[in-house]
Amino acid sequence: MSASFLHSLMNPKSIAIVGASNNPMKMGTMHALSIIKDGFKGKFYPIHPSEKTVLGLEAFAAPEDLPEAPDLAIFVLPSKYLLGFFESFGRVGTKSAIVITAGFKEIGVDGAALEQQLKDMAAKYGMRFIGPNCMGLVNREADLNTTVMPLIGKPGHLGMISQSGTYVAQTIVYLQKRGIHFSKAVSVGNEADVNIIDVLEYLGEDPHTNAVAMYIETIRDPRRFLEVAKKITPRKPVIAQYVGGSEAGGRAGLSHTGAMAGKNYLYDGLFRQAGVIRVDTVEDLYARGWALATQPPIHGNRIGIITNSGGPGSAIADTCEANGCVMPIFSASLQSKIKPLMPPHAPCGNPVDLTFSMDMGIMTDTIVDLVMQSGEVDGVVLHGAMSTGFMKAVFPHVSHLLPGIALSDLVNQTGRQLSATASKPFDNGIPMTVSSFFDRDDAYTEAYEDAGVPVLDAPEKAARAMASLVQYKKIRDRGPDTHFSLADADPFAAQIIDDAVINAQSALDEYAAKKFLACYGIPVPDERLVHDADGVVAAANDIGFPVVLKACDPDILHKSDQNLVHVNIMDVDAAIHSYHLIQEAAGRPVPVLAAKMISGRRELLAGITCDAQFGHCVAFGIGGVLTEALNDITYRLAPLGLRDAEEMIAEVRSAKLLGHYRGMPPADVSLLAAILVRLSKIPLLHPQIIEIDINPLILSGSQPVAVDALVVLK
Amino acid sequence: MSASFLHSLMNPKSIAIVGASNNPMKMGTMHALSIIKDGFKGKFYPIHPSEKTVLGLEAFAAPEDLPEAPDLAIFVLPSKYLLGFFESFGRVGTKSAIVITAGFKEIGVDGAALEQQLKDMAAKYGMRFIGPNCMGLVNREADLNTTVMPLIGKPGHLGMISQSGTYVAQTIVYLQKRGIHFSKAVSVGNEADVNIIDVLEYLGEDPHTNAVAMYIETIRDPRRFLEVAKKITPRKPVIAQYVGGSEAGGRAGLSHTGAMAGKNYLYDGLFRQAGVIRVDTVEDLYARGWALATQPPIHGNRIGIITNSGGPGSAIADTCEANGCVMPIFSASLQSKIKPLMPPHAPCGNPVDLTFSMDMGIMTDTIVDLVMQSGEVDGVVLHGAMSTGFMKAVFPHVSHLLPGIALSDLVNQTGRQLSATASKPFDNGIPMTVSSFFDRDDAYTEAYEDAGVPVLDAPEKAARAMASLVQYKKIRDRGPDTHFSLADADPFAAQIIDDAVINAQSALDEYAAKKFLACYGIPVPDERLVHDADGVVAAANDIGFPVVLKACDPDILHKSDQNLVHVNIMDVDAAIHSYHLIQEAAGRPVPVLAAKMISGRRELLAGITCDAQFGHCVAFGIGGVLTEALNDITYRLAPLGLRDAEEMIAEVRSAKLLGHYRGMPPADVSLLAAILVRLSKIPLLHPQIIEIDINPLILSGSQPVAVDALVVLK
Repeated sequence: MSASFLHSLMNPKSIAIVGASNNPMKMGTMHALSIIKDGFKGKFYPIHPSEKTVLGLEAFAAPEDLPEAPDLAIFVLPSKYLLGFFESFGRVGTKSAIVITAGFKEIGVDGAALEQQLKDMAAKYGMRFIGPNCMGLVNREADLNTTVMPLIGKPGHLGMISQSGTYVAQTIVYLQKRGIHFSKAVSVGNEADVNIIDVLEYLGEDPHTNAVAMYIETIRDPRRFLEVAKKITPRKPVIAQYVGGSEAGGRAGLSHTGAMAGKNYLYDGLFRQAGVIRVDTVEDLYARGWALATQPPIHGNRIGIITNSGGPGSAIADTCEANGCVMPIFSASLQSKIKPLMPPHAPCGNPVDLTFSMDMGIMTDTIVDLVMQSGEVDGVVLHGAMSTGFMKAVFPHVSHLLPGIALSDLVNQTGRQLSATASKPFDNGIPMTVSSFFDRDDAYTEAYEDAGVPVLDAPEKAARAMASLVQYKKIRDRGPDTHFSLADADPFAAQIIDDAVINAQSALDEYAAKKFLACYGIPVPDERLVHDADGVVAAANDIGFPVVLKACDPDILHKSDQNLVHVNIMDVDAAIHSYHLIQEAAGRPVPVLAAKMISGRRELLAGITCDAQFGHCVAFGIGGVLTEALNDITYRLAPLGLRDAEEMIAEVRSAKLLGHYRGMPPADVSLLAAILVRLSKIPLLHPQIIEIDINPLILSGSQPVAVDALVVLK
Repeated sequence: MSASFLHSLMNPKSIAIVGASNNPMKMGTMHALSIIKDGFKGKFYPIHPSEKTVLGLEAFAAPEDLPEAPDLAIFVLPSKYLLGFFESFGRVGTKSAIVITAGFKEIGVDGAALEQQLKDMAAKYGMRFIGPNCMGLVNREADLNTTVMPLIGKPGHLGMISQSGTYVAQTIVYLQKRGIHFSKAVSVGNEADVNIIDVLEYLGEDPHTNAVAMYIETIRDPRRFLEVAKKITPRKPVIAQYVGGSEAGGRAGLSHTGAMAGKNYLYDGLFRQAGVIRVDTVEDLYARGWALATQPPIHGNRIGIITNSGGPGSAIADTCEANGCVMPIFSASLQSKIKPLMPPHAPCGNPVDLTFSMDMGIMTDTIVDLVMQSGEVDGVVLHGAMSTGFMKAVFPHVSHLLPGIALSDLVNQTGRQLSATASKPFDNGIPMTVSSFFDRDDAYTEAYEDAGVPVLDAPEKAARAMASLVQYKKIRDRGPDTHFSLADADPFAAQIIDDAVINAQSALDEYAAKKFLACYGIPVPDERLVHDADGVVAAANDIGFPVVLKACDPDILHKSDQNLVHVNIMDVDAAIHSYHLIQEAAGRPVPVLAAKMISGRRELLAGITCDAQFGHCVAFGIGGVLTEALNDITYRLAPLGLRDAEEMIAEVRSAKLLGHYRGMPPADVSLLAAILVRLSKIPLLHPQIIEIDINPLILSGSQPVAVDALVVLK
C-alpha cells in the first residue's frame, strides 16, 4: 500500500514547482534545473507570480491556471506562503507533493503547529507528501532528480533513505568520484507524512534496488519499522547509521528534523531483531551499502586475499578476521598453480602477495581466476591493481628517460581492455572488493567501479565491505521467525494482578511476583510465605534445607543491604534465629519468604522494560552484583519469536559463561529462550504491567531459576 | 645515540646506488630518479657494470672507482649480488646504507642466513643500514627521496615509520590528494639493523616532526619501545596501527617482513603504558596523525560544531561524544551574537547549523571567530565550507541560465582570498578539523589543507581527528611516571622460593604462595596450615569463625571442582566435619589450609604473566567465576610505576565496580595500585618466578585481599 502511493509519487507524469525563478542562485531554481536537465520526460510547470517564462518554460501564476492537475507539486517557498499554494494544488486534484521548505517542527512550537496544519490539509485533499524540511528525491529509473545537485554517472543499485538531505544531494560529487550510484534516494525531512519506514517498504519491493542504506536520527514507529524491515532483510540487505544515541547527537537531531532521539541500546536491539546491519559512519554506510548492492551473494566466510604489498595484505587479513571472516591457507594444489606465476619466494598461501609487481594481468586476471575457481574461498579482497594512475604519478620522474613521449601516449599505450578483468566476480560468482590508493584517475579503479566492483581507498575499508557480505549472509540464513502464541491470560495470574491493583500497590511483593511468573512457566524456587516462627519451621522442613529467608513486603526494596535476607540456612535453629533477626531489622512485623536455597555461580537477568518510544522491550544479560558494572545486556522489542530469544542469548558479550564453563554444565538454552519468549508476551496479556525484573536468574546447574523478581505496575 | 647515526644516514652529502640503469621501468631506476628529480643537492653516483652514464650521470663500475666514499649506499639488486657490493662499500668507508633488495628473513631459513651475513658484514665495517626488503625513505628537510614514487607538494610535519613500504611510497598520491605531507618517512623493511624504535627515537627529537605515525606488524623489543616512546609522548604525539593481533594478520606479517606477531592485548597495554594512541586503520593513522601534526594543542574537551547541514552536524556530535568530547550548549550571550548572522530559526546552541547557506564567509570567518574567541570551546569541527567545488558540481545545470559564462569565469569570480579563513585555528589558538565532501577541487579544501588544517572526507572522520587531540591531551597531562623501588629481595620470601626449588616443585602451594606475597605487603587472609583435626580446631578458634578450609597441596589444582574447598564454616563441629570430608575427597592425607572467611561480592584478579616477546607483564581485571567469560583484563609490562597501576585500575571496562557501587564502599584504589606495583617488581627480585595468579583478589569492604594465589616457578 505504502509502496503503491510512493510509486506514484516517485514516478509522476507531470510536475509543478513553486519557488523556481530565473535567478540561478536560488534554491528553487536549482531544484527546477535538476528536473529539467537530468532527463525528466514528463510535463514540467513552473509557478511564478510575475514571470511569463521560467528557465525557458511557460510559467503559471497559480495552480488553477495549469492546463492539468500535475501529479506532483514541489514547494520551495517561504513557509508562510506554503499553505495557500498547497491548498490550491489540493483543490485542482494533485495527489503528491514534496515540501522542501523548512521552518516547521524543527524550530519549535510554532513550527509544529504549522506542520500540523499542513498534515490536516493534505488529509483533507487526500494528498501524500514528503517533507517538509527535506531535499527532495532521486529516481534514476524515471530520470527524476528533484534535489539541488546535478546527477552524474549511471544509475546504480543502492537505495538511499535519509533524514539528512545532505546524504542524498550534497554528497553526489563525493559518491560519483567513488563510483557509487543510487537507484533511488529519498530525503524525508521532518516526516510529517511519508516517513523512512514507508520508503523502506517501497525500496524493499523496488526491483532496481539491491540494497537499502539508511541515515537515521529517529525511528518514529519502531514497531512498524521492525515489521517492515523483517520482511525485507531475508531477501535484500538493509544497512543503517543511527546518530541519536548520544546526548549531543540527540540534541543536534532535535533541532535538525525535530527528531526525538532514543536509547542506543534499544536501537541496537531493534536493528538486530530486524536483520538490519548497523554502521557508525556515513562512509561505511555508503561503502558497505555499495558492496551489498553490487556483489553476488556470498556463500561462506572464507576470504582469499590477493595483494602486491604486504602491509595492506596484513591489514586486510587482520580486519577480515576481526569481522567474522576466515582466511584459509590455500591447498598445496592451489599454491602449486599460483607459485609459478609469482616472483621467487613470494608468499602464495593466502594472502597471495606478488610484492611490487609490474605485470598486473597476472594478479588481476590469472590469479584472481585461480583463487575464485578453486572452491577454497567464498570471497576475494584485492589490493594493488593499478596502471594509469601509477603511470601518472611516476611520469614526472620517468619522463626524464622518455624524451618526446607525452603522458597521454604512455597512458593510451597501456590501454589494455579491462572489462574482462572487472567482470571476474560476476563471471565466477564470487564477490570481490578492491582496495586501491589510486582513485578513478587509474584505469583499474575506473573499470572496476564502472563494472560494479567496489574500490575502497583503504585496505581496511575493502575488508569491512567484504565482511558486510558475510554479515548479511548470516541474516539471510537466519531460521524462520517462529512466533508461538501464548494461551489467554492465566486466571490465577490475573487474580494476583487484580489483588495488587485493588490494594493500590505499585508493585507485586516478591512472593506474588514469583507466583505470577510461575503461572507462565518461569521456573522459581520452591517457597512459602510465612508469618511466624512456627510457619518458618514448617516451611523449611517441607522445602528441605538449606533454605533462604527474606523479608517480603512490597514497600521494602534493597533487601540485601538491610540485613533482611539470610541465605544458606542449614537447620531449624538457624532458621528460627534468622526469622527473628529479620523482624528486628525490619523494625516492624513483616511476612517472611522461606525458599529453597538455589546455588549457582552464574547469575543472569531477564526482564521487561517500557520505553516511551519503543514500548515494551525484553532485556537479557548478566545479572547479579555485576549488572550495572558490566552492562552486558541485550534488548529486543516485545513480544519475541524463539529466534529472537536465541539470538539474544548468543549475543551477550559474556556468552561464554553459558556454555561448558569452568566445569559447570552448559545452560539449558532452550529453557532460557522459552523463558524470554514467555516473559515477552506477559505485557500483552497483562497491560497493567510496565516492568518486570528477574535478577538474579541463577543457573542452578543447567537450569535457570528466577531467584528474585520484581513486577512493577502502572 | 641512535638519533645521531640516523641523522647521518638521513642527511647524506653523497649517495651511490647499485641497481639503477637507463630502463625507466626498473625499480632501481625509479629509486634513482627520485633522488635526482626530487631535489637532492649532494653528489649522486650510479654504479653500473657496463653503462658509462646512467640517467645522465657518470656511472661507475664499482665502489672502488668512485671519487669519494659516499655517505650513503643504496642497494636495489638481486640478493645474490648484494653481499659483494655491500662489502666493497664497507671497504671504501661508506657508513650508511639502505637495502631495498628483498629475499631475506621473510622467505625463510635461507633468507635468514643471508640476512645474518649482511648484519655481520655491516658490523665488521661499522656500517648502519635500513632494510633489507624496504622501500627507502623520505627526508623533506634534505630534499631527499629514495622511494620509487615522486614526492609531491610541500613538506609537512608528520613523521612516518612503517613496516610496509607501501605506506611510505605508494600512498604518496593518495596523501597528496588529501593534503597530507610528511616531514620524514622511513620504510624499515626487515629491520635487520635499524628498527622502528631507532627511527622513533630519531623522529622524537626531530624539530621538523610534530607527530609520529607508525604502521607496525611487530615490535621486536617491546621494552626498548616502551622506554623510548615514554620519553617522547609527553611532548610529541605518537600514533600507531598494529595489525599482527589476529591469526591471519600475524601469518601475513610473517611472510611480509618476517615479523613475529604478538598478542593484541599485550600491544594494547604496551601502547597505553607508552602513551601511544592506537588506531585500527591506515586511514585513521594518516588522518589523526595529520591533525596531531598540524593543530595547536587542545586545552580541554569542549568542542564547538559549526555546520551548514544537520546530518553531518549530528554525526559529528555523536562521534565526538563517543570519543571523549563534550559539546557544551553555548551561553545565551554567545548565541545572541551568532543568531543575527543566521537564517531565522536556525539552531545556534551547538551545533551551530546555518542550514543550506550561500554566504560562506559568515560561517567560515565570522562565526568561527565568535565561537573560537568565546572561551566556551577548546576545539572546533566545521562542516560544509565549499565554493568552487560546489560551483563546478552545479555548473552543468546553472549554465543554462548563464549563457556565455564559462565555468572558469564563475570560479575565478568567487576567488575570495581564503588565507585569513584558513588561518583561524592558528590565529585563535584553537584547533580545528574540517569535514567536507568536496576534495581539493574546492577552493576551501585547498586553502585549509595548504594552511595546515585537516579536511576529512566524512564528518565522523573529522570528529575522530579532533577527538585524537583530546586523547593526546590526556597523555600529555599524565602525571609523572613515579617508579619507587622495592628494597632488596625479602630473605623470608627468598627462602620460600629456595625451598620449593629444592623440592623440585613447579609451583608454590597455596599457603606458601600467600606467605610469599605477604612478604611484599600484599594483603592475604589470616590462615594456618594444619595437618589434623585438632590443628583445625586450634587454628579456627585462633582465627575466629567463620573460616574456610581448603586442601593445600601444590599437586592439586582446581580445588573447588573436587569438593576440596569448604567455605563459611561457622563452628568447631562443622570445621571438623569439613576437615574429614576434604581428606576423603582427596583420597589421601593432605594438609589443610584454615583461613579467615573473606566476604565480598567483588572479585578481582591481579597477576604476572611471562610472554616470549614481552617478558614479564602485569595483569589486572575482573576475577572470580567470570574471569574467562568477561575477559576484562588489562596488561602492562613489568615493572610498573604508580601511574601505570592507577591507569590499569581506571581502564578496566567494569571499573564502575570499583567505585561506590550498590551500597558497597569504593575500593581502596591506592592499596590496589600499591599491590600491582609491588607485584610487578617481584619477578625482578625472584627471577625463578614465571607466573603469579591472584584470583580472586576479593574486595572485603574497600580492602583487596588475595584469597587464592598461585606462584609458578621456572
